[in-house]
Amino acid sequence: MKSPTLPAVARAFREIGRDFHTRGWVLGTSGNFSAVLTRKPLRLAITASSVSKGDIRPGDVLTVGVTAARVGNSGTRSRLRPSAETALHVAVVQSQGAGAVLHTHSVWSTMLSELHSAEHGLRFSGFEMLKGLEGVRTHEHAEWVPILENDQDIPALARRVEIVMKQSPAIHGFLLRGHGLYTWGDDLPQARRHVEILEFLLETTGRMHSFRK
Amino acid sequence: MKSPTLPAVARAFREIGRDFHTRGWVLGTSGNFSAVLTRKPLRLAITASSVSKGDIRPGDVLTVGVTAARVGNSGTRSRLRPSAETALHVAVVQSQGAGAVLHTHSVWSTMLSELHSAEHGLRFSGFEMLKGLEGVRTHEHAEWVPILENDQDIPALARRVEIVMKQSPAIHGFLLRGHGLYTWGDDLPQARRHVEILEFLLETTGRMHSFRK
Amino acid sequence: MKSPTLPAVARAFREIGRDFHTRGWVLGTSGNFSAVLTRKPLRLAITASSVSKGDIRPGDVLTVGVTAARVGNSGTRSRLRPSAETALHVAVVQSQGAGAVLHTHSVWSTMLSELHSAEHGLRFSGFEMLKGLEGVRTHEHAEWVPILENDQDIPALARRVEIVMKQSPAIHGFLLRGHGLYTWGDDLPQARRHVEILEFLLETTGRMHSFRK
Amino acid sequence: MKSPTLPAVARAFREIGRDFHTRGWVLGTSGNFSAVLTRKPLRLAITASSVSKGDIRPGDVLTVGVTAARVGNSGTRSRLRPSAETALHVAVVQSQGAGAVLHTHSVWSTMLSELHSAEHGLRFSGFEMLKGLEGVRTHEHAEWVPILENDQDIPALARRVEIVMKQSPAIHGFLLRGHGLYTWGDDLPQARRHVEILEFLLETTGRMHSFRK
Repeated sequence: MKSPTLPAVARAFREIGRDFHTRGWVLGTSGNFSAVLTRKPLRLAITASSVSKGDIRPGDVLTVGVTAARVGNSGTRSRLRPSAETALHVAVVQSQGAGAVLHTHSVWSTMLSELHSAEHGLRFSGFEMLKGLEGVRTHEHAEWVPILENDQDIPALARRVEIVMKQSPAIHGFLLRGHGLYTWGDDLPQARRHVEILEFLLETTGRMHSFRK
Repeated sequence: MKSPTLPAVARAFREIGRDFHTRGWVLGTSGNFSAVLTRKPLRLAITASSVSKGDIRPGDVLTVGVTAARVGNSGTRSRLRPSAETALHVAVVQSQGAGAVLHTHSVWSTMLSELHSAEHGLRFSGFEMLKGLEGVRTHEHAEWVPILENDQDIPALARRVEIVMKQSPAIHGFLLRGHGLYTWGDDLPQARRHVEILEFLLETTGRMHSFRK
Repeated sequence: MKSPTLPAVARAFREIGRDFHTRGWVLGTSGNFSAVLTRKPLRLAITASSVSKGDIRPGDVLTVGVTAARVGNSGTRSRLRPSAETALHVAVVQSQGAGAVLHTHSVWSTMLSELHSAEHGLRFSGFEMLKGLEGVRTHEHAEWVPILENDQDIPALARRVEIVMKQSPAIHGFLLRGHGLYTWGDDLPQARRHVEILEFLLETTGRMHSFRK
Repeated sequence: MKSPTLPAVARAFREIGRDFHTRGWVLGTSGNFSAVLTRKPLRLAITASSVSKGDIRPGDVLTVGVTAARVGNSGTRSRLRPSAETALHVAVVQSQGAGAVLHTHSVWSTMLSELHSAEHGLRFSGFEMLKGLEGVRTHEHAEWVPILENDQDIPALARRVEIVMKQSPAIHGFLLRGHGLYTWGDDLPQARRHVEILEFLLETTGRMHSFRK
C-alpha cells in the first residue's frame, strides 16, 4: 500500500465529508478523519478542530506526529488546531496498523450507544452486509462492536481505546457513548466502506427495536 | 466580527436554504433567515414572506430596521414584505447580541414541541454533539430548549421570547409549539452549525421515544 | 394569472419530478402532474402514462381536453398515452378552478390513507405549517383531508372526487387509499408548495403514531 | 428488445448505482447488477466483486457466460472477479427470461426478510404502487415475495432460487434473508422500476409494523 500525499488526502476527505454530511453522519462540526502519510516517523493527516465536514478545504487538513501535536505547516492555516480527538486516531493507527481512521456521529450510532451501554457493546450477526468488513467471509460471523463511556479527558480515553483493542483485536470499529462511531481500514476507501457497513447495521438494528414489542 | 453586505448575505441564504430544503427542514414557505448588516442603527437582512427557501433569489432578501419595518430598497422587489416573524428575529438579535438568526421547521422539531409542551421545554444532556454549541465544553452539559406556545400575534410572541431569553440567557435556541426551531449565532456559519446540532439532537431524542416502552 | 406554454410546463414538470423522485414521493412510475394551458376550451398539459417522474422529457408531456382524450400532437411521442388518471385531474381543475394539479405517492401518504380509511379522512390542526396552504391564516385552522377508496374505474372515481369536492369545497387535497395524495393550486408553484406542506403534515402525523402508546 | 452493448450497460449501471447508493440501497460493496448482452450464447454484463456501486467505472463491469465464469476481457481490469452472486443472476435470467437483474440491499428489505422469515415470504396487496409491476392491472393484486434463507454456497442457493421461481413463476422479485432484494425486468429501466416499487412497498410495510400495536 503506497502512502498518499497530503493534497490527495485533503481531496479525498473533501469528497467523503460532503457525502457523509449529506447523509447526516457528520453534522455540526462533528466527526473527524485521518490518514497515514508516513509510518516512520508517523505522520498523520487529520481534519482540524471545529471545521464543518461538509466543506473541507485543503487548509483544513493538518499534519500531526505520534504525540498528536502538529508538525510542519504546508497547506495549513496557522489558527487551526488538530482535532481534539487526534490521540484516538493515533491509538487506532498504532494498535491496528490502520492506514485511515474515520469517525462519524450519526443519529443511529448515538442512539444505540446509549441503548446498549450497559452491555458495553453490541453484537451483529446473520447479516450478509457483514461480509463487506475486511476479512469476514460469512454472514454467520458475529461482529462485536464495543461501547466505551465518553470522556473529555482524551489521553485517558485513548488508553481505554488501546485496552479495548488489545482485548478484542478483531474488531472493525467501536462506539463512544453518546458520541458516535470510530472505524478504520488499510486505506481511506476501505475505512469508508466500513463506515457505510457499520452505519447500515446500526440503522437496521436500531429500526428493528421498534418492531420487537 | 465584520458585518456582511446584503449581496453576500443573500448568497449565503441561498446556499443554506437549498441545503435545508433538501433535508426537509424548510418545506412549503416555512422557515426564515436573518443576518445583521449594521448594529447602529440596526439593519437586518431577512428573507421575504412566502418565499420558498429552496430557491432564494437576491431580490427575496429585504432590509429591515429595529421596528421590523422595511428600510431602503436595494435589491428587493416592491411587492414583497419581510417575513411575518421579523419581530422575533429582532428580539433575538437584541437580547442575545446575535449576528444571525435561523428558523427551521422540521418534522422532528414539530413533533417534540408538541410532545414536551406541558413541560415548556426539553433538556438535552450526555451527548457529545452538545459541544458544538458555542461555549459548551463537555457532553455533561445540560442544554435547556424552551418551548413557547405558538401565537399569530407576533408582537406578543416577541415579548414572550424576550422574557424567556431573560430567564434563560444561556440558551442556544427555542421551539415554538407546532412551529419549529429558532436558533442563532455570532454569524451565519455559527447559526447554521447550531441548526445542524439542535436538529440532530431533536431527531435523536425523537427516535429514542419509540424505543422506551 | 397568465397561462403557461407547453414547453414551459414540461420544463417545470422536469424539475419538480426530479426533486420529488429524489425525495421518494414518485417512485416507480407513480405520480402524475398537470397544468392548465387554456381554459376555453380546456387544454391541460399532463404527464404521459408509465413515465418515470425522475426523468421527464419534453415528449413525455401530452395535451388533453375536457374528455381526458389527447388533442394536438406537438412535442409528443405517438406511442404515449395520457396518464390513466387524467379524468381525476380534469375533475379537480373543473371543480376547484385549479391551474395545476400534482399527484404524489409517498410512503407516509400511503400509510395514513390506510390507517385512517375508516374515518374517510384525517384532520390536521395546531400546526403552523398549515398557514402555507392558500387562504389559511392561523395554525388553529382545522384542515380536513378526505380519503377516498381506491378504484380502477377512473370515471367512477372522478365522479366520487367531484362529490367530495362539492361537500368540502375548502379542502386543499385528498388521499386515495393506498394510492397517495392529490393536491392543486392556482399555478404550479402553489401546487408544489401544497405538496410540500401536506407531505410534511402526513409525515409528522405518521411519526407521531409511534409515540402515542 | 434490442440487446445493449457493454459500454452502454456500464454507463447505465453507473447512473443506477449512484442513485441507489445515495438512497442507501447499495452501501459498502453490497448489491450487484447484470444485463443480458446476447442470449445465444448467453453473455451477461455484471458488476465485479467488491466494487462500490456508488462509483462504477467502465472497467468494473465484466462479461460472463452461462457457467458464471468470465469470458472475453474487453474493458475490464484483470484483477477483478465477477460478483460472487453471478450464479443467482444467471438463474434469474434463465428461469424468467429476464434481460436485466438488480440486487439491492436496503435497511427495509433486510429487516423484513428477518421479520417474515418464518412464513418464507411476504404478501403485498391493496397498494396502487403494485400496478407498476409488469403485468399487474389492479391494486387488488396480491404479490408474493418469497424469502429464502441466506447461504454462502452460491450454487446451492442458485438451485433453490430456481425451485422457488418454478413454484411461483409470476413473482417479480425475492428476498434473501438478512441479505436484501433481487428483482428483474425485460430491460434495465424495467428492472430499475421494479426495484423502486418493491423498495417502496417494503418501506411502507416496514413502517406500518410500528403502528400496529
